[in-house]
Amino acid sequence: MKKSVFYHAGCPVCLSAEHEILELMDPATIDVVHLGEEKSKIQDAENAGVKSVPALVTPTGNVLHINYGASMADVKN
Amino acid sequence: MKKSVFYHAGCPVCLSAEHEILELMDPATIDVVHLGEEKSKIQDAENAGVKSVPALVTPTGNVLHINYGASMADVKN
Repeated sequence: MKKSVFYHAGCPVCLSAEHEILELMDPATIDVVHLGEEKSKIQDAENAGVKSVPALVTPTGNVLHINYGASMADVKN
Repeated sequence: MKKSVFYHAGCPVCLSAEHEILELMDPATIDVVHLGEEKSKIQDAENAGVKSVPALVTPTGNVLHINYGASMADVKN
């Protein structure tokens, strides 16, 4: 099964959302990507349609932006 | 087990998010509340901390605001 990807940038809002998402969904179905630590993946996230983090990209390619932690512009800096 | 509650107001953003959430999580663990049709539940949602819809209130009481469909002020009108 294709996995969901949870993108975050380590901010408190992100970590709180990550904790909840991993509780609610099967953790085995989610890849967690910390864009602050893996800046090479920022382009992947933007290509997937991620506008802000935290965000969950689903197996069908839809993007669920959760709460509002930081814009992608902030993540790059 | 205490259920999550997914609040929405029937807008396209809400319905898209609802579809994704019900795919990703076990639907048996989620109550879906349409605030446009059940206005009596708007107060419950506000008490839970819901600021905009669609939003998922988790069993632990945290609120995940997903994308951004409509503010609670819009839902009341």
